[in-house]
Amino acid sequence: MLNPVNKGGEDIAGMMREIGTRARAAARPLSTASTEAKDQALQAMAQALTDRAPAILEANARDMEQGRQSGLSAAIMDRLLLDEERIRSMAEGVRAIAVLKDPVGDVLDAWERPNGLRIERVRTPLGVIGVIYESRPNVTADAGALCLKAGNPVILRGGSDSVHSSAAIHAALVEGLRSAGLPEDAIQRVPVTDRAAVGEMLKGLDGNLDVIVPRGGRSLVERVQADARVPVFAHLEGLCHLYIDRSASREMAIGIAVNAKMRRTGICGAAETLLVDRAAADTHLVPVLAALAAAGCEIRATDEVRALFPDAGEASEEDWATEYLDAVISVKLVDGVAGAIDHIETWSSHHTEGIVAEDAAAVERFFNEIDSAILLHNASTQFADGGEFGMGAEIGIATGKMHARGPVGVEQLTSFKYRVRGAGQTRP
Amino acid sequence: MLNPVNKGGEDIAGMMREIGTRARAAARPLSTASTEAKDQALQAMAQALTDRAPAILEANARDMEQGRQSGLSAAIMDRLLLDEERIRSMAEGVRAIAVLKDPVGDVLDAWERPNGLRIERVRTPLGVIGVIYESRPNVTADAGALCLKAGNPVILRGGSDSVHSSAAIHAALVEGLRSAGLPEDAIQRVPVTDRAAVGEMLKGLDGNLDVIVPRGGRSLVERVQADARVPVFAHLEGLCHLYIDRSASREMAIGIAVNAKMRRTGICGAAETLLVDRAAADTHLVPVLAALAAAGCEIRATDEVRALFPDAGEASEEDWATEYLDAVISVKLVDGVAGAIDHIETWSSHHTEGIVAEDAAAVERFFNEIDSAILLHNASTQFADGGEFGMGAEIGIATGKMHARGPVGVEQLTSFKYRVRGAGQTRP
Repeated sequence: MLNPVNKGGEDIAGMMREIGTRARAAARPLSTASTEAKDQALQAMAQALTDRAPAILEANARDMEQGRQSGLSAAIMDRLLLDEERIRSMAEGVRAIAVLKDPVGDVLDAWERPNGLRIERVRTPLGVIGVIYESRPNVTADAGALCLKAGNPVILRGGSDSVHSSAAIHAALVEGLRSAGLPEDAIQRVPVTDRAAVGEMLKGLDGNLDVIVPRGGRSLVERVQADARVPVFAHLEGLCHLYIDRSASREMAIGIAVNAKMRRTGICGAAETLLVDRAAADTHLVPVLAALAAAGCEIRATDEVRALFPDAGEASEEDWATEYLDAVISVKLVDGVAGAIDHIETWSSHHTEGIVAEDAAAVERFFNEIDSAILLHNASTQFADGGEFGMGAEIGIATGKMHARGPVGVEQLTSFKYRVRGAGQTRP
Repeated sequence: MLNPVNKGGEDIAGMMREIGTRARAAARPLSTASTEAKDQALQAMAQALTDRAPAILEANARDMEQGRQSGLSAAIMDRLLLDEERIRSMAEGVRAIAVLKDPVGDVLDAWERPNGLRIERVRTPLGVIGVIYESRPNVTADAGALCLKAGNPVILRGGSDSVHSSAAIHAALVEGLRSAGLPEDAIQRVPVTDRAAVGEMLKGLDGNLDVIVPRGGRSLVERVQADARVPVFAHLEGLCHLYIDRSASREMAIGIAVNAKMRRTGICGAAETLLVDRAAADTHLVPVLAALAAAGCEIRATDEVRALFPDAGEASEEDWATEYLDAVISVKLVDGVAGAIDHIETWSSHHTEGIVAEDAAAVERFFNEIDSAILLHNASTQFADGGEFGMGAEIGIATGKMHARGPVGVEQLTSFKYRVRGAGQTRP
């Protein structure tokens, strides 16, 4: 075991190369590991997290102390903090992954050719996954467990703030692997906090890293997306829109708008821009804005909206491009669903958009013409979440269109291969 | 229309940027184009290819004349050559794509959540596709048609050898788009042969190119894979293995081995290494090698094999890493299916591998433990082809594990999005 200390650049490169080689070596035994072995390891991990709670809390206390000394913000300190309840919830999360269906070996499709060849497409693990995250120590357990379930070795690189907590959590995961006879290299943790380690991961570890999942703030995701030489599953921002059509139920529009914006303002599925059908300006606009304002939301709107709702502040073009992640919403009138689609296709980050409407044609048009990962009709945008989708757990939400899109759960962490069965066929 | 002449680097960059912008602008109308419009365009393209055959042949004659002057090899000249039959076959290929099922809008999965939300995952176009190819002019029609069917704008960059032929074929495709009212920018051709244009595509055209498909020889694919900043669907080589188990029918083994190697030696699905179960050395090895030799195949083998079949030449370690694409095969004895798997996992390019066996346990092990795009049991490796798989047409075969793997047909050129239908649900 390498010491969790910072090392020189050369050493880091060599160490990361070794981590990559070991991850790749673990891929084959992991890809053929039985469902039973993987699930047994996951259950043992959950148990080890519970058993080791005192050690994990002690490690977390060190991180918290360091955080206080270095003056971390209250928000980061809260993300960093572990208590018995949070450890229990982490263990439950791992158990929930254990009881998910094993995706590996799933037959996705099967057909027979006129020459008698029987072809099937079956799920396989995807490869070595790198997860780069910030201060939340629970990502160590979530990401480790999810990658294992799909048969993928994972390399975890957590932030320096949570280094002791992550190490203690990682030790519990390794105990679970060991108890099920799975390779310990299936879940590796980068034991140094030097940023050069991230640089090596972005370069792909000599082809031994197949995909990177960044978990954290905008600057982390931006750096990973800009510099990674391997595919990235991520979203840079969730600039989500809610459109209220002239056909919408007013009560429903109020309920969904308040929930989409205000339930939690800091998550990627929170609505940032409200588009209201110009034909509903006299019926829906003011009650919806009044409800948002009453819920404590700052409203920034066009002059046209402000004429009807004078309490609103002024929206500039920059507002259409801004993910507030706060109790602020930008508001604009549009010409029906076509106007909403135009605005969204211009400004959206292609994460999640919602429509409130009773007119089926308007909904179909919204669903067909908008190219975002998630589209919702008559439901809050805050449902944009792998758990809410029934995927059991997610490692993040992707806005790219290659391979994974939307919530990245266990199935999105797989690839596939073709199996063809014949009876001596040769090609003419 | 820009002239098909070489231009300076600055001009190339600007021109390519414009091509990218126009492709992206075509993505939205194309993604919502009806199946009827796309199929009508494809049928009109096929008709235009037939109607314009004299012009295409004239353009091809110019390429052939240039080729003769610049001393192209006979193999390249054959790939370059068009005649009425080849044009007819190109038009038929486009018609075959027209009658394929439109993948866009396909519901891949649908489920309901306990809170009543109904979720479906539906296919969408993938994005702007760049195809970089060499001398085969028919790729212009195949790739253009396949990308259109999946609703993707495509940027075609053919080799300089076939520039006149490709331009004439491209004109027929544009005629088809126009007649169906689809944007002409849906299928753009890079009108210059300057290599700087390829460099611009590899950089991704300011985010306006989503994936690159290289079609051609090893050096082209190698360059694209090394330098592309966008995902690449490709295989560098098809180092395919055929394993003959002790349980194999000897007659079947002979038939499959000869077909897998000798039917066409230059295709990526041709077998390059024959692995024979050591337990079948006395029963299968010599008849199989004798049949290969009788079919004109050069055999390079280990000393152990040469002791039993003295006509074989000597194999060095380099042979296990060589895709001959010729009437040559490397041969080795292995310890059953486990030995075959070890050899294949060490040397394979993860394209296609075959097993001849009657023992179901050996087949299952081969199918489970080998991580190649295509695995075949009791069938020739030369079936590794999108047409043979029933996909109708393919733009290539991919050995990567991200997004597309194996034959890249119309479905592999799609992404997906989620549509969620509610009745006013908000998240608690």
